[in-house]
Amino acid sequence: MLENLHVDDSIQLERHGSILTLWLNRPESRNAMSLKMVNAIQQVFADLADDTSIRTVILRGQGGHFCAGGDIKDMAALRVEATSVGSLQPYVDFNRRFGAMIEQVDQAPQTVVAVLEGAVLGGGFGLACVSDVAICRDNAQFGLPETGLGVLPAQIAPFVVKRIGLTQARRLALLGVRFNGREALQVGVVHEVVNDAAELEQTLQATIEHIKRAAPLASRATKALLHRTLNEPLESLLDDAAQQFAQAVGGAEGQEGTMAFIQKRLPNWTEQ
Amino acid sequence: MLENLHVDDSIQLERHGSILTLWLNRPESRNAMSLKMVNAIQQVFADLADDTSIRTVILRGQGGHFCAGGDIKDMAALRVEATSVGSLQPYVDFNRRFGAMIEQVDQAPQTVVAVLEGAVLGGGFGLACVSDVAICRDNAQFGLPETGLGVLPAQIAPFVVKRIGLTQARRLALLGVRFNGREALQVGVVHEVVNDAAELEQTLQATIEHIKRAAPLASRATKALLHRTLNEPLESLLDDAAQQFAQAVGGAEGQEGTMAFIQKRLPNWTEQ
Amino acid sequence: MLENLHVDDSIQLERHGSILTLWLNRPESRNAMSLKMVNAIQQVFADLADDTSIRTVILRGQGGHFCAGGDIKDMAALRVEATSVGSLQPYVDFNRRFGAMIEQVDQAPQTVVAVLEGAVLGGGFGLACVSDVAICRDNAQFGLPETGLGVLPAQIAPFVVKRIGLTQARRLALLGVRFNGREALQVGVVHEVVNDAAELEQTLQATIEHIKRAAPLASRATKALLHRTLNEPLESLLDDAAQQFAQAVGGAEGQEGTMAFIQKRLPNWTEQ
Repeated sequence: MLENLHVDDSIQLERHGSILTLWLNRPESRNAMSLKMVNAIQQVFADLADDTSIRTVILRGQGGHFCAGGDIKDMAALRVEATSVGSLQPYVDFNRRFGAMIEQVDQAPQTVVAVLEGAVLGGGFGLACVSDVAICRDNAQFGLPETGLGVLPAQIAPFVVKRIGLTQARRLALLGVRFNGREALQVGVVHEVVNDAAELEQTLQATIEHIKRAAPLASRATKALLHRTLNEPLESLLDDAAQQFAQAVGGAEGQEGTMAFIQKRLPNWTEQ
Repeated sequence: MLENLHVDDSIQLERHGSILTLWLNRPESRNAMSLKMVNAIQQVFADLADDTSIRTVILRGQGGHFCAGGDIKDMAALRVEATSVGSLQPYVDFNRRFGAMIEQVDQAPQTVVAVLEGAVLGGGFGLACVSDVAICRDNAQFGLPETGLGVLPAQIAPFVVKRIGLTQARRLALLGVRFNGREALQVGVVHEVVNDAAELEQTLQATIEHIKRAAPLASRATKALLHRTLNEPLESLLDDAAQQFAQAVGGAEGQEGTMAFIQKRLPNWTEQ
Repeated sequence: MLENLHVDDSIQLERHGSILTLWLNRPESRNAMSLKMVNAIQQVFADLADDTSIRTVILRGQGGHFCAGGDIKDMAALRVEATSVGSLQPYVDFNRRFGAMIEQVDQAPQTVVAVLEGAVLGGGFGLACVSDVAICRDNAQFGLPETGLGVLPAQIAPFVVKRIGLTQARRLALLGVRFNGREALQVGVVHEVVNDAAELEQTLQATIEHIKRAAPLASRATKALLHRTLNEPLESLLDDAAQQFAQAVGGAEGQEGTMAFIQKRLPNWTEQ
């Protein structure tokens, strides 16, 4: 049960019915992504993988920032450990875990909404890139500062390219420029930009309503199918998609959906 | 001969020289895509595959709408059939055929222009996604309503992702939001947006003029080559492209094109 | 040494510290890409492949144009040669070499900036498509005129699709339309549009400053990694990226970058 899940203080969970809000909760460091935070997020999404009672996951940050990237203190601790063991392996393990977490969020069966305010940098930028819906404040600050810090946007590179394409990714990663919400919309990182906190909540609420109007199982199947289009040959994918379509249309959701459409009413999805 | 092709009433064919207009013709149901319509479109594009006398195919809908998606009446009939045979196979076959039709249009050697008015929903959206040029009215209404009907955008998913990328596709498919022509341009579904019927015809006419100015064989070869860039390794593709370039430049079109360029006149392509 | 490199008159090299400007230098023909020019560019980039003293390569054209495409005079010469040897092979070899050059620029370890003015057509368009940063004048003229000349954009097709996606590429290549800098920004060919020559130099200067602020080795590694995301499976790529991250953070650049961040100063990268 997610409500009772023991999680680290670095994140907070807030559940309302089928909606889970995962707050990044290190406002004192603009929600810099610590190893503990990475582990906590992984634990939550591992639990979510089989949880059909939750349909929507909202990712957002406490204190006016989404996430300023990796935690510099972790880096210092890793440096001590690397020196102690005489190997770079501690850095490798740490970094790789970050990519595993991003991938887990990308593949979550739930519809994932990112609410982006303040700093959306480095790893925070990478996390934003795997949301299904990204809403941001116009004054949010996006960027890939890694090369300016002497390192690579190593684990997030594939997710950034998948989000915004190579054309934009190469400029952002090589120049390290910061940009606001309007530019994030143009570049394709986010879907909607709002001007203030009130509009942000309204847009988030409207998004949640839309998610609820979609059939739960069909939404999960659709998200998984969309991901597969990037990696699988067309013919066999379409064969499989036809099987899934038949299951859906012949199942409870397809019957209710068709009926609601004919009766010109909103469908009534069984709370999963 | 396409002029004499017996087609179902669900579509109409209109030919002017090298231009074929394929009208979706079920205005009473906003050109909902019936199985008969799918079959008729497939028959036309099967004929077009080897027809070099037609250079341009215009897809558009009668009655102010492009296509509102799948036909709900077909679904009811399929439900009866599925119950009768005790299997979901009728749904599978129906759905898969739709994807086969979309793929056929995508790979058509002609330059395919979609004229988008009114409803461009579900399957209609998918069909729009495989055009070479998409022109729309600003008040056209786009959307992927499938998850709201309890089903998946199964056969169109790969074509939607190829058209607008995963970033936009996941939001549109999971939220089921409707959007107009301006947003369709921003998202990348269409290339041009016009304000009224007169501007629509002007833009279509200008597009046809551009298509005619391009060499017929070179255009076909270029379209096929562009498709291949998504699936083939770079080196062998470039090797093959160089062979095709040599054939073109050494052939009748390449000679006429070079000559026209030097003589500062429009090229005179042999009507194929 | 690049300064002493004997290059053809068709290009000019200008070096300031770690910045190399490669001028296309056939202003009398709007810098049409001759075979000699292709060879000269290849020679420069072959030298650059192992040159860590140069961090930035600026590609631009003398005389107010970037590059108007292939050289029609070369075509005439090739026609004579093809007739003489009784084979299309001279065309094949010429064309394939062009693609090899574009690929070499695409994969250059340096950050490549394209400054786009006047004609950016055909092969010039292809070359622009492999820059890391593309800045253009609003009145620059972009286009793929090949099909209008009876030939294919053969060697550039894959790079154009990689740059702007299939959706835009198919329209531009099949219609041969010309478009200005604002549209180039919308379509995704370029990153920034400026209004006049002064603004162009300012934007170029700001870009160079950003490149210098990024760590040299980390930038090279990042660029290579971004390219690999398009071709390699995710898991092994992330494994490898973690190794690279560890090398970077444990190396001189990572140490200087971390230190500078903590000390709130600009990092001081060793001039490579």
